[in-house]
Amino acid sequence: MHDDAGVRAFDRLEAAARRRRAAGLVRTLRPRPAPSAAGPEAPLDLAGNDYLGMARHPEVTAAAAAAAHTWGAGATGSRLVTGSTALHADLEAALADFCGFESALVLASGYAANLAALTALGAPGALIVSDAGNHASLIDGCRLARAEVEVVPHRDVAAFAKALDGSAGPAFAVTDSVFSVDGDAAPLGALARACRAAGAALVVDDAHGLGVLGAQGRGAPAAAGLAGAEDVVATVTLSKSLGSQGGAVLGPARVIDHLVNEARPFIFDTGLAPPAAGAALAALRLLRGDPNLAGRVRANAALLHRCLTAAGLDATRPDAAVVSVRAPSAEAAVRWAADCRAAGVLVGCFRPPSVPDGVSRLRLTARADLTAEQVEDAVRRVVRAAPAGR
Amino acid sequence: MHDDAGVRAFDRLEAAARRRRAAGLVRTLRPRPAPSAAGPEAPLDLAGNDYLGMARHPEVTAAAAAAAHTWGAGATGSRLVTGSTALHADLEAALADFCGFESALVLASGYAANLAALTALGAPGALIVSDAGNHASLIDGCRLARAEVEVVPHRDVAAFAKALDGSAGPAFAVTDSVFSVDGDAAPLGALARACRAAGAALVVDDAHGLGVLGAQGRGAPAAAGLAGAEDVVATVTLSKSLGSQGGAVLGPARVIDHLVNEARPFIFDTGLAPPAAGAALAALRLLRGDPNLAGRVRANAALLHRCLTAAGLDATRPDAAVVSVRAPSAEAAVRWAADCRAAGVLVGCFRPPSVPDGVSRLRLTARADLTAEQVEDAVRRVVRAAPAGR
Repeated sequence: MHDDAGVRAFDRLEAAARRRRAAGLVRTLRPRPAPSAAGPEAPLDLAGNDYLGMARHPEVTAAAAAAAHTWGAGATGSRLVTGSTALHADLEAALADFCGFESALVLASGYAANLAALTALGAPGALIVSDAGNHASLIDGCRLARAEVEVVPHRDVAAFAKALDGSAGPAFAVTDSVFSVDGDAAPLGALARACRAAGAALVVDDAHGLGVLGAQGRGAPAAAGLAGAEDVVATVTLSKSLGSQGGAVLGPARVIDHLVNEARPFIFDTGLAPPAAGAALAALRLLRGDPNLAGRVRANAALLHRCLTAAGLDATRPDAAVVSVRAPSAEAAVRWAADCRAAGVLVGCFRPPSVPDGVSRLRLTARADLTAEQVEDAVRRVVRAAPAGR
Repeated sequence: MHDDAGVRAFDRLEAAARRRRAAGLVRTLRPRPAPSAAGPEAPLDLAGNDYLGMARHPEVTAAAAAAAHTWGAGATGSRLVTGSTALHADLEAALADFCGFESALVLASGYAANLAALTALGAPGALIVSDAGNHASLIDGCRLARAEVEVVPHRDVAAFAKALDGSAGPAFAVTDSVFSVDGDAAPLGALARACRAAGAALVVDDAHGLGVLGAQGRGAPAAAGLAGAEDVVATVTLSKSLGSQGGAVLGPARVIDHLVNEARPFIFDTGLAPPAAGAALAALRLLRGDPNLAGRVRANAALLHRCLTAAGLDATRPDAAVVSVRAPSAEAAVRWAADCRAAGVLVGCFRPPSVPDGVSRLRLTARADLTAEQVEDAVRRVVRAAPAGR
């Protein structure tokens, strides 16, 4: 009894596609051409998360190449079988040391790091209290964990404290350090105090904080005086400020040991590819070697915000490298982003379901390797492309 | 009211660690030294999933290095923002063409590919019927999907058919093509017929089939005559026979389009690092260029099985590249694997919770680049190290 399309299981896909088209929410992959093919007029990138310009840094790409030659293109198995190399161990030691934690565990992605941390800690009987603005990977980690989950309003410390209070089993507060859409920061110090009062632990996703916040970019936990605390676990990604791929969980050794033994997204996944591990390690060395890198990102983000606001746009004040600008509608946001691209500036375009509140916006990111002139020129182009009805 | 350890949230970690020690189930990371440091007596690897020897192939590692130089060490963002390159598009076209599917989507890991496929297809109101022996990433995908999930006995086509029959909404049967622990194959043809009778679609994780099964290693769906079928979706990993990192979903264009728009593990993760994409593409070209590679793996797996069985060990008959050998206990399995390592042979040691039935075993994998003499010599060492009470 199948319809003309042949496969009843896929009937709903057509309806979902129609709904997307009607709502202006169609997503399209737009592959970048090779840099040489892009010519001298390559667009200015205010859309990516390569905050320190590490992805194309010659020492970083050379380290990726060297790791491929020395260790191979892939890890060949789970980290628990054949997939652990001395390179992974070196990277874990360097991350733990730089961010100020006792121990670290590297996984194939930041997404996997969040799933691993939350599922391994969130056993049945545990409670996870999660900020309503958390990243999709934290939300999915909460859903995959077998713990009870309570979602509390965005950055609402009192709501966190209330939810944690009186929990019978292990309790965890979970938050992004810097929220990925609007770039606002979590009140980490106050959250840590609320956790301590309840015997709970704090889990911080520092994806957008590492390399940007704290002295030398040591991250948001370090900036809040929480690095290495016995009740704090951080996750980081190697794919943003470190210009590579992968993720890591940082925390007390007993937590990392628990993850090695219990975290399914670690145990049952192939280890991070050596070229990615080598690149991240090289980027970390560069970051350590230039104490001003993180400050330059923050200064450029502040300049971005000043220029956008001066032009009358509704831009968020950045706590790290991310600035968002409200758009009147999803379709207007898409058109605005396309007009920016035509004007030589790449910006992110965030629409439902990638935004917490249903409000579409452009998302602009600062980089350490942009000059003030580049930032000012980019903003002029973004402003010229802005929709009339904003 | 905290105990001496200070953090009530982590109290259970100590108890879990004690239980692991008592049960002989402690997992330890054992990083490989750099190949040069390992000296001429590097152990023979029968533990990894690099079935075709691609991870260290000079053309593959050179492609990883070239991609790092051309495209950068990382993708810099989600595939929907800045993370898509022409290299990703080339890899997707090559995978779809080689495996015989209309369309392909590359993700950062095979784990992510399974989460993406199952969560995007398994919307509320859908039914997913899942083999009890499926890989952890499929199980986690089922748990993360909002569909109803029914687990049926291992390779039981009648149970699949019964569960699918009469489902009101979209229905999906989900199976590994080759089960990762024992290396046995799913009855794909019969499962596809059961799906068609019910208007359901078949989702096949071909992680251990690509490069090993089918003409030229085109994979299990191709071997079963199901490649490109309008009601079949396959997932593959780039980290086993292709020697790299990453995963992909293959299927009808409308399914891939749906994933681009709806799959959270795709939308909210950084794109696969260019070195991994470049390496996988080079490995795919090598696989296409040598029609005998897949046959050599299968012949070596059969030889492995014959030698182990001839020595009186309880080894599974391989449908692909994986052979497992039962051990009397978890502790005996750990000791056996350690003794093999001391004798110069790396084997996998699978214990609860990595085994479906609580039975610990060694897991041996064949590679295309092993000679018959190497296989026979390795088995002699494994047999000499076997526990007395087996």
